[in-house]
Amino acid sequence: MELVKEALNGSERAIARLITMVENELPGCREAMRDLYPHTGGAYLVGFTGPTGSGKSTLVDGVALTLCTQGYSVGIIAIDPSSPFTGGALLGDRIRMRHVTNREKVFIRSLGARGGLGGISQATSDVIKILDAAGKDFVLVETIGIGQDEVEIAQVVDTSVVVSVPGLGDEIQTIKAGIMEIGDIFVVNKADREGADQVVAMIRAMLDLGPSVTLWSKPIIKTIATESQGIDTVVEQIMLHRAHLKEHELLHAKRRERIEREIVKLLEHKISQYVHDRLYQVHPLNDLVEQVNKREKDPYSCVDYLLEFLEKK
Amino acid sequence: MELVKEALNGSERAIARLITMVENELPGCREAMRDLYPHTGGAYLVGFTGPTGSGKSTLVDGVALTLCTQGYSVGIIAIDPSSPFTGGALLGDRIRMRHVTNREKVFIRSLGARGGLGGISQATSDVIKILDAAGKDFVLVETIGIGQDEVEIAQVVDTSVVVSVPGLGDEIQTIKAGIMEIGDIFVVNKADREGADQVVAMIRAMLDLGPSVTLWSKPIIKTIATESQGIDTVVEQIMLHRAHLKEHELLHAKRRERIEREIVKLLEHKISQYVHDRLYQVHPLNDLVEQVNKREKDPYSCVDYLLEFLEKK
Repeated sequence: MELVKEALNGSERAIARLITMVENELPGCREAMRDLYPHTGGAYLVGFTGPTGSGKSTLVDGVALTLCTQGYSVGIIAIDPSSPFTGGALLGDRIRMRHVTNREKVFIRSLGARGGLGGISQATSDVIKILDAAGKDFVLVETIGIGQDEVEIAQVVDTSVVVSVPGLGDEIQTIKAGIMEIGDIFVVNKADREGADQVVAMIRAMLDLGPSVTLWSKPIIKTIATESQGIDTVVEQIMLHRAHLKEHELLHAKRRERIEREIVKLLEHKISQYVHDRLYQVHPLNDLVEQVNKREKDPYSCVDYLLEFLEKK
Repeated sequence: MELVKEALNGSERAIARLITMVENELPGCREAMRDLYPHTGGAYLVGFTGPTGSGKSTLVDGVALTLCTQGYSVGIIAIDPSSPFTGGALLGDRIRMRHVTNREKVFIRSLGARGGLGGISQATSDVIKILDAAGKDFVLVETIGIGQDEVEIAQVVDTSVVVSVPGLGDEIQTIKAGIMEIGDIFVVNKADREGADQVVAMIRAMLDLGPSVTLWSKPIIKTIATESQGIDTVVEQIMLHRAHLKEHELLHAKRRERIEREIVKLLEHKISQYVHDRLYQVHPLNDLVEQVNKREKDPYSCVDYLLEFLEKK
């Protein structure tokens, strides 16, 4: 495929077109991904997750700049799970990343979340593969740190950076409890704000509740991204975590797990699509729905009935 | 089933135990839901969605109190999509709702999001059914307003209230763009804060971008939930929206759609589970995963291969 060849040669235009294809599931996107796949695996994937207002974008911006300075090529994917309907991207993220947008080596793309089964993570992991195959050394994936989405993102990257910030109130802080497990590196941004040390102490305390003997001791780094303070340390720790994963053969294991998860997910998605199409083709649900609505049947029994029905066909 | 009988008689203990069963998919939960189902349909379901820090819980608290005063029994479900691992609930929400917890007629339950396919919405709609069957007149469902979860919540309630707040920054405000469509009633809470009128104007402007001729004109209500200001108006508008849906036969249509969606979702979930179990039983994925990891195969072709394989079996 011509487009794939161009993307492999690093054409930004071709990369952008492929991403659009994948995002909108346009014809040919599966073939493109097949052609691309053998060229993936070279990029190191880093996820950044944190609440709105934590200065995540500025931080990712700084990390990308530092990596560029060190001679690496970088791709950035900004995921916005908050725009479920448009499918498109918010301009905001691109504007905020003004420091890096002019650098040739950085390719930035914002993605909206998509509805339905495995939406966000499948689109995201396809776009990661495109940037990977196009020869980026690092792909940085940025997402808002709430809900199921962030767990899924953590599953598709090699190193997961969790960004916190002082002064967002208790509710935000309690959110952290659930994501201690998915973070490899913790960043407290806007560290010149009051309460930064408390946030660090709180994260430390929560980490101490976890398993005590681990090979990787999760660092907590204070940064002021707007003034580029602490960014070097974040990059350093990403490199250390990467070395750690490679040294202990964990990167290989992690990526194997990821592949298995992806295959199963793609399979489930395909089967579910098939069932969906099939169901509406051969069995109008109207009567069943009406019976359930009248409480003559219940939805759980309907499922058993439909399963039998599909099996016979 | 004894437990179901007790729950139908309104036993809080039985309701709590059923919810725990459903949340953790304990044995017997499907049967319990089947027994319960014929007794559902009486409750009116209201969803509240909004960002962290918008004072949603206090607002829901106030609405519940007002409904109680009017003689209705109320159940509240607080969903926290931010704790994906624990499966349990954060204490925070319960503490914050201290005003209502002592009222006999209000039953409050916090739910964590669950991983995997259709996790959050299936657990939620099951718990709604339990409270519904137990005879609650109103079930209020509260969730953080970000991402796919809130869209799913909007799909399982009759009236959807979208809560905004001044001063949470631009990023939060842009989030709104995606959820204009799912809101039936808009609330700007903490309306004594600077910028409340701008938020109202912004919502108004965004609503004006939508379809101009609609039967229901979406109200925007300013509230100060901590001082109980505007709560009455919110309750009033919920009642008006309910009357509107009933009058135009929309409630029936809405609930039919919901039932159809639920049946298809349950079916997909069951098939996906079946495939999952079956796959690991008959075909260890190890070799395939290793080949994909070596880039000898790609995940997309694997799926086609596995589909054929499953079909043969």
